[in-house]
Formats: sequence, C-alpha cells, structure tokens
Amino acid sequence: MLIDLNADLGESFGVYRLGDDEALLDIVTSANLACGFHAGDPLTIRRACAAAVDRGVAIGAQVSYRDLAGFGRREMEVPPEELCAEILYQIAAVDGIARAMGGRVSYVKPHGALYNRVCRDPGQAEALVAAVVDYDARLPVLTLPHSAVHRVAAEAQVTTVTEAFADRAYTSGGALVPRGRPGAVVTDPAEVAARAVRMAAEGVVVAEDGSEVAVGARSICVHGDTPGAVALARAVRDALTGAGVTVMAFT
Amino acid sequence: MLIDLNADLGESFGVYRLGDDEALLDIVTSANLACGFHAGDPLTIRRACAAAVDRGVAIGAQVSYRDLAGFGRREMEVPPEELCAEILYQIAAVDGIARAMGGRVSYVKPHGALYNRVCRDPGQAEALVAAVVDYDARLPVLTLPHSAVHRVAAEAQVTTVTEAFADRAYTSGGALVPRGRPGAVVTDPAEVAARAVRMAAEGVVVAEDGSEVAVGARSICVHGDTPGAVALARAVRDALTGAGVTVMAFT
Amino acid sequence: MLIDLNADLGESFGVYRLGDDEALLDIVTSANLACGFHAGDPLTIRRACAAAVDRGVAIGAQVSYRDLAGFGRREMEVPPEELCAEILYQIAAVDGIARAMGGRVSYVKPHGALYNRVCRDPGQAEALVAAVVDYDARLPVLTLPHSAVHRVAAEAQVTTVTEAFADRAYTSGGALVPRGRPGAVVTDPAEVAARAVRMAAEGVVVAEDGSEVAVGARSICVHGDTPGAVALARAVRDALTGAGVTVMAFT
Amino acid sequence: MLIDLNADLGESFGVYRLGDDEALLDIVTSANLACGFHAGDPLTIRRACAAAVDRGVAIGAQVSYRDLAGFGRREMEVPPEELCAEILYQIAAVDGIARAMGGRVSYVKPHGALYNRVCRDPGQAEALVAAVVDYDARLPVLTLPHSAVHRVAAEAQVTTVTEAFADRAYTSGGALVPRGRPGAVVTDPAEVAARAVRMAAEGVVVAEDGSEVAVGARSICVHGDTPGAVALARAVRDALTGAGVTVMAFT
Repeated sequence: MLIDLNADLGESFGVYRLGDDEALLDIVTSANLACGFHAGDPLTIRRACAAAVDRGVAIGAQVSYRDLAGFGRREMEVPPEELCAEILYQIAAVDGIARAMGGRVSYVKPHGALYNRVCRDPGQAEALVAAVVDYDARLPVLTLPHSAVHRVAAEAQVTTVTEAFADRAYTSGGALVPRGRPGAVVTDPAEVAARAVRMAAEGVVVAEDGSEVAVGARSICVHGDTPGAVALARAVRDALTGAGVTVMAFT
Repeated sequence: MLIDLNADLGESFGVYRLGDDEALLDIVTSANLACGFHAGDPLTIRRACAAAVDRGVAIGAQVSYRDLAGFGRREMEVPPEELCAEILYQIAAVDGIARAMGGRVSYVKPHGALYNRVCRDPGQAEALVAAVVDYDARLPVLTLPHSAVHRVAAEAQVTTVTEAFADRAYTSGGALVPRGRPGAVVTDPAEVAARAVRMAAEGVVVAEDGSEVAVGARSICVHGDTPGAVALARAVRDALTGAGVTVMAFT
Repeated sequence: MLIDLNADLGESFGVYRLGDDEALLDIVTSANLACGFHAGDPLTIRRACAAAVDRGVAIGAQVSYRDLAGFGRREMEVPPEELCAEILYQIAAVDGIARAMGGRVSYVKPHGALYNRVCRDPGQAEALVAAVVDYDARLPVLTLPHSAVHRVAAEAQVTTVTEAFADRAYTSGGALVPRGRPGAVVTDPAEVAARAVRMAAEGVVVAEDGSEVAVGARSICVHGDTPGAVALARAVRDALTGAGVTVMAFT
Repeated sequence: MLIDLNADLGESFGVYRLGDDEALLDIVTSANLACGFHAGDPLTIRRACAAAVDRGVAIGAQVSYRDLAGFGRREMEVPPEELCAEILYQIAAVDGIARAMGGRVSYVKPHGALYNRVCRDPGQAEALVAAVVDYDARLPVLTLPHSAVHRVAAEAQVTTVTEAFADRAYTSGGALVPRGRPGAVVTDPAEVAARAVRMAAEGVVVAEDGSEVAVGARSICVHGDTPGAVALARAVRDALTGAGVTVMAFT
C-alpha cells in the first residue's frame, strides 16, 4: 500500500502569487513545477526547487502550451515539431535549475489544455513523448490511464505513471465525469479523504452510478490553488497515513 | 597563433528570421545561442544546436534580459536575485537542448544591454557569475577585458575569456570607441580582415590615435545579422587561415 | 468596375522586420494593420498609420489571437467573452494610434487562425462581431463570403465586405482550394494579375475544374511578406488599372 | 474643500487576481486602470471600465513600461520614440474600451518605474507628454509636484494634477521619504486617515521633522493590492467626508 501525492506548484509569476508552495511541499511527495510557459518565473521555480530538495519531494516538469495569458488552459494547434521543441526547452530549464539546487527533474506531467489534448490526440502525444525521449527517455510521464499518451509512450518505451483524482467523480467506465456535469467535483473534505484512502488501499473508487471502478493509480493529484486547498491536501495525507498507506513518491 | 571566432546565432523568433545560422555555422568556431529571452524560440534553438553539433562548433548560452520587444538592448533594473534566476533558467534551457542534440553549452556570453551592464556594474556581474556557479562553475564567461564581470568572475574562480571586435575602433586605452563617434565602426571588409589577423597573430590592434594596443583576445566576435555579414565573416576567417592562424574554439 | 486591394502591414516587431510597409502602401488601397497580438509593436503601428494617412490608404484593424510566437497562425480555444475583449482592445489600440496620426480604423479584418475560425465557427464569429458592435457597429468586417462570420454579422446588422485571392485556386463551389493540395497557389505573376482583372472586371474566377465561379468580391487580398510580393502586388495593380478597373478602397 | 481619491485598478492578469476592483470602485473617485503592459488583460480592463462607468468613477490610463514579469517596477532604457508609441498604444486601448462601456479615459497616470523616471528624467517625461499630446492634449497627467514631468507638461500646455500619499512620510522639503528609510510608510489606519484629512482640508502634511509642509494635492492615492487595503481606503474616505471634505474626481 503505497501512494504518491502530486500537486501543481511554482505557478506564481512576478508579483502574482498563486498557491502556497511551502505549505504544499510539506504535504505532497511529488511537485509538478511550472516551467515558465503557462506560469512560473525563474525565481519562483528556483525557490520551489530548493524547497522541494530540502524536503525530499520529487520534482516534475509541468510542461505546457506557451500561454501565460490563458494559464495554459486554452487548447492550441501547435505543429508537433514546434511543440516538441517547446516541451524540450521547458524540461531542460526546470531540470537545470533543479540540478543547481541539488535535485533533478524525475518525471514529466503535461499541464492544462496540453494534458487533455495528449490524452486523446496521438499527434500531440507523440510530440510530448519525443521531447521526453530527446531529453531523457527514462523520465516517466504522469497522466490518466487508457489515454493516447500512454499508448504512444509505451511504443517509445517511455514509462507512464497513472494518477487519480480523489475530488472528481468517475463514470462506471473509469473516466472522469466532465466538469460541467452536476456532482463532477467532490467538495466535502472527509469524502475526498475517504475516496483517496480507497484509491490507495484498494485501488478502487465508487463511480457516479454506485459501482466500484478500478483506478490503478500510483499517484493521487491534489490541488493547490483554491481556498482550502492546503487543508484538504493535509486531510487527504492524514487519512492515508491513518489508514496505513505509505505516502511516497513514485520515482 | 590560435583564435576563436564567435557569433550570435539562433536569434530568429517564430516567423521572424534573423541572420543565416547555417551559413555562419560553417565559418565560426563558437556559436552564442539566443536562449529565448531576447530572441530565439525553442525550435530555432534546437535546430541551431543540432547544426552546431554537426559541424563541431562550440555552443554558448547567450543570456539576456527578458526583453523580446527590445531584443535585449534596453538596460533594465532587474534585482540581482531575479536576474540570477533568469540567467540560470536560460543556461539550463539551452544546455538541455544542446545535450539532447549531442552537444552541450560550453560557455556563457551575456547579450546586448546585459553585456554592457555587467562590464561596468559589479552587482549585475555578480548575479551573472552566481548563475554560472550555480549551474556549472567550470563554464567560462566571454566578455571584454578589464571589466567588472572579469573581476567578479576571478573572485568566484570562474574563468573568463576575452573577446575583441575586428570591426570596431579602439581607444589608446584599449576600450571600444563608443558607437556614436565617427569612425567607431570599421566597414571595409579588407581592413576588418587585416585587423583580425593582427589581433590573432600579434595580439594588437591599431587604436584611433595610431598607437598599437594589446587586445589579448582569445576570441574575435563577428556579426551575423547585417547584410553582408556572412561574406565579412568568411573574409575574416579566410584571412586568418591564410596568415597561418589556427581558427579554433577556446573551449 | 471598382476594386479594393488590401494587404497585411505593420507586422514587424522590434528588430524583426517583415514585409516592406512603405512600398506596399504605394500600391494597396486598404492596409490591414497588425494590432500587437500576433505581430506589430506600437512604433511600427504608428509609423504604418502615419504612412497610410499620408497616402490616403484606408486603415483596418487586423485582429488576432494573442500569439506572437506563432504569428497568430495557431488556432486557440479562447472563451468568447475573453476573445471579444481581446479584439476590442486591439481595435481600440490601433484606432487610437490612427486617429493620433490623422486617420482612423475604418474596417476590421481577422488574421490567420482567427480568420479561418470565424469563417466556420459561429461562436468565435459572435465574439468578433460583438467586439465590433461594442466599439463601432458601423465598421465593416472583411472576410470570405458564405462564412459563419458573414451570417453572424448580418444578424447584428454589421456590414461585411467580401475579399478574393487572385493567387489562390478556387473550387467549383467558390471555396479556396486548401493549401496542401497541388495547384492551390498560383505563382505566375501574369496569371495572378489576369485572374485579378477578371475578378474585378467580371466578378468571376476560373475554378480548378475549368468552370467559372462568381466571386463577388469588393476587395482583392495581396500578400506582402514573401520575396517578390511587392512586385506581384504592383503587377496586379497595373493590370487592373490597365484594364480600366478603378482601384479604390471600399470604405 | 475638495479632494479626489485615486487607486490602481484592473491589475489582474488571466487567472492571477490582484486587488479587489469592485470594492475599491465603491470608494475611490478616480481609477488608474492598468493598460496591459505591466498588468491587466483585456477582459479585466473591460470589466473594470464597466464597473467604473456604473459608479461614475473617473477612468485614467495607468501607462507603463512593457514589463509583465516585473509588474512595471523595473526601470528600462526605452528610446523616447518607442516609449511614446508604447504609451500612445496603451492610452488608446483603454480609452477605446472605456468608450465602448460608456465612459472614457479622462487622465493619464504613469505606473511604477515609469512614474519615478518621468518625475526626474526630462527625456522620458517628454515621451510621455508627447503621447498625451498625440492622443488628446486635454488629458491631464497625474503625478508628484515639482517633477520633471510637470515642467515638461507645462511647456507643452498639458495640464498636470498633483497627488499626495497619506501613508507616506514627507521630508521638510515636500518630497517623499524613500521607502528604505525607517518610518517611510505610515501603517496606522487612524493616522493615515488623519493625514489625509489635513492634506485635503488644510493642504498640509506634518513632515518627518515635525514641520508642516504644503502638499497642494488635488488627489490622494490609496493602495489596493495589499491586505487591509480596502478597509484603509474606506477609513480614509470616511474620515474625509466626516471632516466635511467633498470627495470628488478632479476631472
């Protein structure tokens, strides 16, 4: 019974603060660090790397479309060769800073619109995987299971790691209930924590129709940029350890 | 009789083309690659790295203020801690891409307004040197002699390499004649080539008052983004080899 | 027999030069000025406005997605309310500069990926038209005929003006042959000029299957950023005037 | 006894929130709206314009260096012609949005590093004033008294309006005590409010040496982006009206 807790961090930009990096780094075991394309200025990234290294938290490159104005949440038709180079640039920048702080990037997680896109579009998934292969083919990619990027990565012998969302409703088919639908997001902290425990301890989640679905996740994603996020992440971690689950990075 | 020829490369951005990277890479021995802050998109950088590796040209990180609109030519009051992180980010990004292409960043050269600033301002020079130390203290810094950054680098045991400009007039004190002054720029290709040869073979340049000045340069900078730049660079290289000077990277 | 010639202008950015604004402004009757989102810095826009006013060339706001790195050519999923505000901002910026130079924005033309998108997507077309209505409902929108934006504009009582492309092949249905297809682009200057004359004088173009298609265009778009572009635009204009067509802005 | 209260608004950017525009617009009489160069995306600006128009709050263009990463707080050596065009672009963009919302830009206030620079540098002050003259010479410029921009504006017959800072200590010469010095910022809300009342009702402030200094301000600047800012602004306004001062825009 092992689980990783990952969260998006390093997303401040200049005077603009987003999330509480220090507090979350005391809770999670993997930090998806913004790379400067959707968020994250170099000083923010550097501080987040240093703080992650201090706490032994694994560092991931949270790569994104180049879209600061839209926080990487707007899908973009980026030609694959260009996208591959942009992702390579981002991994390299954060890995170099991490190494300067005594750590290193040990996985890659796509962000926002790119995350959704590579889960269903083999072309953009190939661009992402090609960047990983170019940089360091041993870096695992963290995403949803049964996705285009998982298939593409497997073909390229790149490892994938599956994550689950304790605060999101699941369909009986194991997919996330789309955000627009009622009940798509679970807001009660106790329920979120309980779902996390079942995910970690039993590998299942109760779907919206009441059936049990296997999630097969090695990591659970917690959010950091909403009010109450830190408290919720703490509740999830405490529930996991209380249930005898070991919270540990997957890397 | 050894000299390096360096030029700024990788300065295109999206549809905007600047300079002829391929042609210059056939001439120079060191390529100062833009890092994305004053110029250079990831795909441009990647292609320039691949082409440099193909030809055995040394790759340098041409670090800059974050100023795409001003091409890094506008001096900025960036707090040292922020500047250091920005430079670290840039070195890391280009080094990572270079490594993915089979090479690596083997020196650092500041660009434009930052170049001028670190030559006279110890505070910003310290930020630059600190970034080099953070990333890899063995990377030499390429700039003008007798400058603040040379002193600061020496204190930090970071190597500096001195460059000279064959197309710029020198004062009898060994400084560049400011651009505004008449005769500041030498435009005749034959004269530029002849000056390069004396710089490389004898270590001297004739100053504006006719006196001979020691330049002590291990590298000569040639420009790539003006009409006729490639032909001039070729003329300089041919004159050097014709005079028995070995043109070779300093790294 | 009246026709307008329009071209994209003001697309330089900082040191990056694109096209020859001065030369094209001597040829065209309508200048689609970049607004700073895909290209065009304020000084470039200001100079282009001043030069257009000098020559009596009509000024249009060439509005775009916010995508300098991709030159506005990458489709983006921008929420309509945000897109509307972005377009309003762009029209306002260029109109204010044009007015300061003694002119004004007299039409709006979407650029690149946004152009293609509003021709087929009523949602983004509505965002564009809403911005026009917000700013000045009397400004016409210049695009392709039979497009989503024409329908949406008609509903909002915003005028649309139709343009044709003398250098592009047409299907028998009156659509442009997609760029990838062989023969999609007409490169022979004499043929381009001849097609422009038939478009202007007879309102028709010969489609790829040899049939004649009505184009019903009040404006012909000429390109400015390719080698030979100025000469081709000049050839088109000379052929038009030689054939007795009056070349005049539609505004 | 008339005074204006001005505050910086519209400084959010995408997902990044800064300040509480709605709450401050219920208190101030003049809103210095970010123009997109140091902060402020188009939708934020549009919403702030609409909310200002609703409440009858005067709208000012808060023009800045192009420096989103540094929030316009880093001084930049921008050539005057370029700076003038950048400022013109910003005024135009916000004025156009304001007009679309039923209002208009009725004054200009430089932001951050540009504010400080134009107070002492006639060259950059001339660029600012030239942009105002280009756009609408009747727009007043809001800054500190006895500054370079006041002199330059007077020569160009552009009106200037003087502002004071109730939360900043003054020297006996009428200048602000530099931020680094102890006591430079007054933090006690009651004291700030009391100083605002004396500034508005008597035109004086007690300097750091205890002497009374004339401030001659038609506007008092309140801050919006710090915790407690809204409450402090409310306290200042209540104290002013309680003392019989009419709080009214200067435009």
